[in-house]
Amino acid sequence: MPTDEEILKIYEASKGTIETVPKVKVANKEDLAIRYTPGVAAVSTAIKNDKSKVFAYTGKSNTVGIITDGSRILGLGNIGPEAGLPVMEAKAMLFKKYGGVNAIPICLDTQEEEEIIRTVKNLAPSFGGFNIEDIESPKCFRIVDRLSKELEIPILHDDQHGTAMVTIAALINAMKLTGKDITKVKIVINGAGAAGLGMVRLLSYMKIKSVYVIDKNGVIYDGRKEGMNEFKQEIAALTNPEKLQGTLETVVEKADVLIGASTAGVFNSGHIQKMADKPIVFALANPIPEISYKEAKDAGAFIVATGRSDTPNQVNNVLSFPNIMRGLLDSGAKRVDYDMLYEAAKALAKCVGKELGPERILPIPYSAKDMIAVLSNVATAIATSAVKSGNSRHSEIDLTTIKANAAKIIKREIKLEKVATKAQQ
Amino acid sequence: MPTDEEILKIYEASKGTIETVPKVKVANKEDLAIRYTPGVAAVSTAIKNDKSKVFAYTGKSNTVGIITDGSRILGLGNIGPEAGLPVMEAKAMLFKKYGGVNAIPICLDTQEEEEIIRTVKNLAPSFGGFNIEDIESPKCFRIVDRLSKELEIPILHDDQHGTAMVTIAALINAMKLTGKDITKVKIVINGAGAAGLGMVRLLSYMKIKSVYVIDKNGVIYDGRKEGMNEFKQEIAALTNPEKLQGTLETVVEKADVLIGASTAGVFNSGHIQKMADKPIVFALANPIPEISYKEAKDAGAFIVATGRSDTPNQVNNVLSFPNIMRGLLDSGAKRVDYDMLYEAAKALAKCVGKELGPERILPIPYSAKDMIAVLSNVATAIATSAVKSGNSRHSEIDLTTIKANAAKIIKREIKLEKVATKAQQ
Repeated sequence: MPTDEEILKIYEASKGTIETVPKVKVANKEDLAIRYTPGVAAVSTAIKNDKSKVFAYTGKSNTVGIITDGSRILGLGNIGPEAGLPVMEAKAMLFKKYGGVNAIPICLDTQEEEEIIRTVKNLAPSFGGFNIEDIESPKCFRIVDRLSKELEIPILHDDQHGTAMVTIAALINAMKLTGKDITKVKIVINGAGAAGLGMVRLLSYMKIKSVYVIDKNGVIYDGRKEGMNEFKQEIAALTNPEKLQGTLETVVEKADVLIGASTAGVFNSGHIQKMADKPIVFALANPIPEISYKEAKDAGAFIVATGRSDTPNQVNNVLSFPNIMRGLLDSGAKRVDYDMLYEAAKALAKCVGKELGPERILPIPYSAKDMIAVLSNVATAIATSAVKSGNSRHSEIDLTTIKANAAKIIKREIKLEKVATKAQQ
Repeated sequence: MPTDEEILKIYEASKGTIETVPKVKVANKEDLAIRYTPGVAAVSTAIKNDKSKVFAYTGKSNTVGIITDGSRILGLGNIGPEAGLPVMEAKAMLFKKYGGVNAIPICLDTQEEEEIIRTVKNLAPSFGGFNIEDIESPKCFRIVDRLSKELEIPILHDDQHGTAMVTIAALINAMKLTGKDITKVKIVINGAGAAGLGMVRLLSYMKIKSVYVIDKNGVIYDGRKEGMNEFKQEIAALTNPEKLQGTLETVVEKADVLIGASTAGVFNSGHIQKMADKPIVFALANPIPEISYKEAKDAGAFIVATGRSDTPNQVNNVLSFPNIMRGLLDSGAKRVDYDMLYEAAKALAKCVGKELGPERILPIPYSAKDMIAVLSNVATAIATSAVKSGNSRHSEIDLTTIKANAAKIIKREIKLEKVATKAQQ
C-alpha cells in the first residue's frame, strides 16, 4: 500500500476517477444533425408533449446523482463537501463498474436539511434516482424519508438500505449453517446509526421480533427518556418487545447474533462467551472492526464477518448499491421499499452456492465472476418486487433481459475502463 | 435526414448521448484500496486541510454543470426542464468531444430566479464551472451576473458569451477582407436577447461606438420609455451615441454591418441595398435565418454568414463553448470577462489562415483539423488573458502545455467515442 504522500500524487495525476464519454457516434454532419440541432428538437417536442418520455429518450433512465453534504464522510466526520468529493467519485466509479449505472457526484454547499431537500428536488428532472451518501444522522433519515415521499424516483440510502441488505443476506446464509430458524433467534445490534436503523426496518419487515438495539445510552426500549428522537422511537416500537433495559453486557446474554454497526474495539471475548451456542458475530465498523476476526473466532464465534478484505466474509456495500440501483432503474421503480430489499438479500445469499461455509457466507466483492451473478440476481429480485408491489412505473417488465444484461454490463465496463485508462497515458 | 419518428427511435435505442466511464484502472485489491477506502481518506483529509486542493485531487477541475430551467429551449420556447434534457445532453457531448471537458446536464425543476441561483450555488463544490443554457432573458442575465459575482468559478453563458465571441471573430475577418477599420464601421444588431447583449458588451469593450440595437420597439436609445429593463438600459448606455430613434428600416441606412440575432425572415433585399459599400450580413437566426445566404448575396452583400451548415461561413457555437471552457478550466479562471472573449475572438479569427476569403471567414465547425487549431489557440488566448488580468487562481500557467494538449484531447476523444459506441452494440 502506498504512503499518503504517494496516494496524493496518484490522485493529482489522474484528477478524478470518472469522466464523461459520448456514447453515440458523431462522425459526420448527418450524425450531428440527428444528435444536435435540428434533429434533437423532435425529441424535445416529444418529451414536452409527454413528460414521461424523458425516461425513454434520454440518459435520465440510467443516471443517478450521488448526494452528500460532507457532514459524515467515511470515519472522518464533518469535513465538508469538497473533502467528500473524492469519496463520491470513487462511489460513482463503483456504480458504473459493477452496475453499469452513470452516477454523478454532487457535493452540496449547504448542510441545512430543508435546503438539501429543496436542492435535490430541483435536480430531479435530469436524474433517474439519487443515492444519499455520508450525511450525518438523524438528518439523513429525514432527508431520505422526505425525498422518497415527494419524488417519484427511487432514493437509495446506501448507509441504511445497502448495509442492511448485505448484512441480512449474510445472516440468512449464517442461519443455514447453524440450522437455526431466523425468525426465532435473538439478535443484538450495537449502533443505532443509518446501518442500525436500516437493519431494524428490514428485520421488522421480515417479522423478526427478538431484536435489541444499543446506542450510547444503553438498550433502546419503548419509554426510554434519554437520547431519543423520532427514529430511536421507531426502533423502540419495532424491537425489544419485553422493553428490556440494560447495556450490551446484559443484553448480549444468550444472543444468537451480535452485529456491530458502531466503532472500533467495543466488543470483547467476554461478550461472545455469553452468547448462545454457535455465536454469529458481524463486526462491521470500518476499517477497524468492533472485534477482530481472529479474536472473535478464538472466543468461540461460529461465524465472523467484518468490513475488511483481509479476512473471510467481507460485508462490503459494493455487493449492494450498484445492483440495487440497477434493479431500481431497470424496473422503473418509484421508490425503495423493504420488500425489494428482502428479496434482494435472499437473492444475494443465493449467489453463494456450493461454496457456502463458515468462511464463505457472502459472494466475493470485486470478483468479476461473482459480481456478474450478484448483479444478475439482485437486480432481477429488486425488479420483480417493484412490479409486484406496484412501486414501479411499469406494470410489467422484461426480467429475462435484466437477468441477461448483467454479464454484458460487467464485460463492457471492463473494456471501457481499459480504453479510458490506456488513452489516459 | 431521418424523419422525426425515426429520430425518436434512434434516441430510444441509445437512451442519451453521454455516459460516465472510470478513468483509472481498478483491476485488483490494491487499486481499490487506493481509489476507495482506506486510501481515499488521505485525499479527503488533504482537502479538508486545504480546500483549494480539491482542484488538484479531483475531477472538479475538469467538470462543469450545464444548467437550464427549460424556459427557452432552442426555438421551442418554455417547454420545461425534462424536454430540455436531450439538448443539454447534446451540448455535454460536444463539450467533451471538442474540448475534453466533462459536462453534466442539470435541468432544474424550478424557473424562479432566486431559486435557480441558490441551487447552482449549492452545487458549486463538485464543479469547476457552469454553463448557463437556454434560460429566457432577461432572467438569464441576472442569473449569470449574480453567479459570476457570488462564485469563484467561471460562469459561461454560451448564448451571450459564446455567440458574441464567434460573431466578433467573423467580423474581424470580414473587416480584413473589406479593408475597413473595425473601430469606424457602423454596426446594426437586430435583436436584444442574450446574443445581442453579449455582442454589445464585447463591442463596447473593443471601444466600438457606432452600434445600433433594435428590438420589437425599434432602435434602443438612452431615454426610450417602451419595453426597457436594466439590460436594455445598459445597451442604451453602450450604443447609439446620437440617441437615434427609428426602426431597422431607417437605421440600416449606410450601415457597414447588419447582424441578425432575432427571428426567421425579418431581413429583405431592401435592407441590404440601403447599406454602405461591401455590406456584411450575419443572419444568425436558427434554423431559418433572417435572410437566406443566397438572397443576401443576390441583394449585393459582400460577405454573408448564417447559423446553417449548408451554406458558407457557419456561425456555430461549437467554435466557442468547448474551447472557451477549456481555457477557463486550464487557467484556473475565477470568472469570464470581455478581455478573455476579445482575445479569444482574435485567436479564433487567426485560425483561418491562407484560406481567408468571402466564403471562408471562420474555421469549419467539426472538422478535426480545424477544431484542433481552434481548441489550441482559443484556450491559450483565454488562459493568457485570465492570468494577465488576475482573474485566475494562479499567477502563472504553463501555456505550452495548454497549446500542445489540444491535439491530444481531440484525438483521445475520437478514440474513446469509437470504443464506447462499439461496445454499445
